[in-house]
Amino acid sequence: MKHTTEKELISNRNHPAIKRIHNLQNRTDRDRTGLFFVEGLRFVAQAVEHKAPIRTIVYAPALLSSPFAQRLVRLQRYAGTRCLAVAPEVLHSLALNDDPQGIGAVVEQKWTPLASVSPKKGLCWLALETIKSPGNLGTIVRTCDAVGAAGLLLIGDNADPYHPACVRASMGAMFTLDFVRTDMDEFLRWKKQHDCTLVGTSPSAQAEYNGVEYPAPLLLFMGGERKGLSQEQQQMCDLMVRIPMIGRSDSLNLAVATGVMLYEVLRQQRAVMSVPAL
Amino acid sequence: MKHTTEKELISNRNHPAIKRIHNLQNRTDRDRTGLFFVEGLRFVAQAVEHKAPIRTIVYAPALLSSPFAQRLVRLQRYAGTRCLAVAPEVLHSLALNDDPQGIGAVVEQKWTPLASVSPKKGLCWLALETIKSPGNLGTIVRTCDAVGAAGLLLIGDNADPYHPACVRASMGAMFTLDFVRTDMDEFLRWKKQHDCTLVGTSPSAQAEYNGVEYPAPLLLFMGGERKGLSQEQQQMCDLMVRIPMIGRSDSLNLAVATGVMLYEVLRQQRAVMSVPAL
Repeated sequence: MKHTTEKELISNRNHPAIKRIHNLQNRTDRDRTGLFFVEGLRFVAQAVEHKAPIRTIVYAPALLSSPFAQRLVRLQRYAGTRCLAVAPEVLHSLALNDDPQGIGAVVEQKWTPLASVSPKKGLCWLALETIKSPGNLGTIVRTCDAVGAAGLLLIGDNADPYHPACVRASMGAMFTLDFVRTDMDEFLRWKKQHDCTLVGTSPSAQAEYNGVEYPAPLLLFMGGERKGLSQEQQQMCDLMVRIPMIGRSDSLNLAVATGVMLYEVLRQQRAVMSVPAL
Repeated sequence: MKHTTEKELISNRNHPAIKRIHNLQNRTDRDRTGLFFVEGLRFVAQAVEHKAPIRTIVYAPALLSSPFAQRLVRLQRYAGTRCLAVAPEVLHSLALNDDPQGIGAVVEQKWTPLASVSPKKGLCWLALETIKSPGNLGTIVRTCDAVGAAGLLLIGDNADPYHPACVRASMGAMFTLDFVRTDMDEFLRWKKQHDCTLVGTSPSAQAEYNGVEYPAPLLLFMGGERKGLSQEQQQMCDLMVRIPMIGRSDSLNLAVATGVMLYEVLRQQRAVMSVPAL
């Protein structure tokens, strides 16, 4: 018995299977494999709940105290998912957080081809090209889920929603959204084909964000953290709006600005549909 | 000449003056000294612009390429501020950022006593008791400045707006706000005395955030990242409102939720005052 347990429990953090998971912290390895790693019970449970394709469960039996978590591992193993039992220090070596809850999972990335996207799905789509911070991206994913936006149209290769910091900031909301990778030409063709309205924000726009109507299908285009939307990006928009700033700040945090915009779109949509307060 | 320059340029990161600055990364040292450290030209320039009491400028002549920055150091030295020239690696040892711009400053913290606070100042005041993340706090400071809120009422010792990550996320907006440290008893007495309306948020509140009027003087009470406002905190509020979430998320990022609330208060105030669009 003892022999079997020792064989099963991975206590070496240089074990090839552990190294492969560790490598998923790098963008190149995530892109190459099409996989990503989520840590913590909340995230693994959400991956299961949303039927995300889990490749491997990694868990530290010595840390996995919650009966819910133990049952989750049992059921996953029963369903045929590869489940690796590891020593606590091996799990710690994989985790970004200070207090890993004894479980993580390798999950397949999910990408939706632009051609199969319905622009009318959900509240709107969010287009991003120049966002830098994965934490901001994850916070935006979380807000998109909250307002019922359909997903993210990521133009170019800048943003990776499967970055560990993005996954963490999304609080698991990433499993509920569609992610599309496209380029600017394809994006603009698709937008024209479906007669979408592309709305951008700029401190120098004439119209205030809550003084105009946002027609569906709506694409909200948010810029980068430092410089917002470039002149070129602004010219692609059908409508430019301004979030007023009456203090000395000349800009808002990108995730906050996106939240303010998304909640205005939600307010308008619910007013139009005369939906009673939920 | 050479001798003099070498004497002036601090190239040892264990120099007592440098160690004292380095220690300001710790809360205990910030509390004990009443000082904090800002890094980067943008922040030092804002400290100067807003007449924050600068104790010491630290700069690396080898990195300080911008004529604006060089002039800033000259003027500060002329005005009597202690200016320490240091080697690039000494400045790097003080900086959290990857690319320090060759300058930083030790600045005195500014705290406003509650007794001298006007509750009618600005758009509203933001009360916080259980916020954890200094990054969130800094983002909230930045949004407060953007909407013209007066400042932060920090209840208890949890939050430190002079944490380096808060300073950085505020983008310098922290120099424009009032910070008040108080405790719950004093806060509630003050609120009652000035007949303020304390508004809190909760996913289980009846009223939607944009369906009620916010009377002045208004205090907005935001909860912690994980659990929002406690039952006890909610019972202190005169009004509880809900930011609708129609997706699967059961919460928003705290800085995003605060941004959505503050912009609704701003919208109402501007509508009441019939201020034309700025």
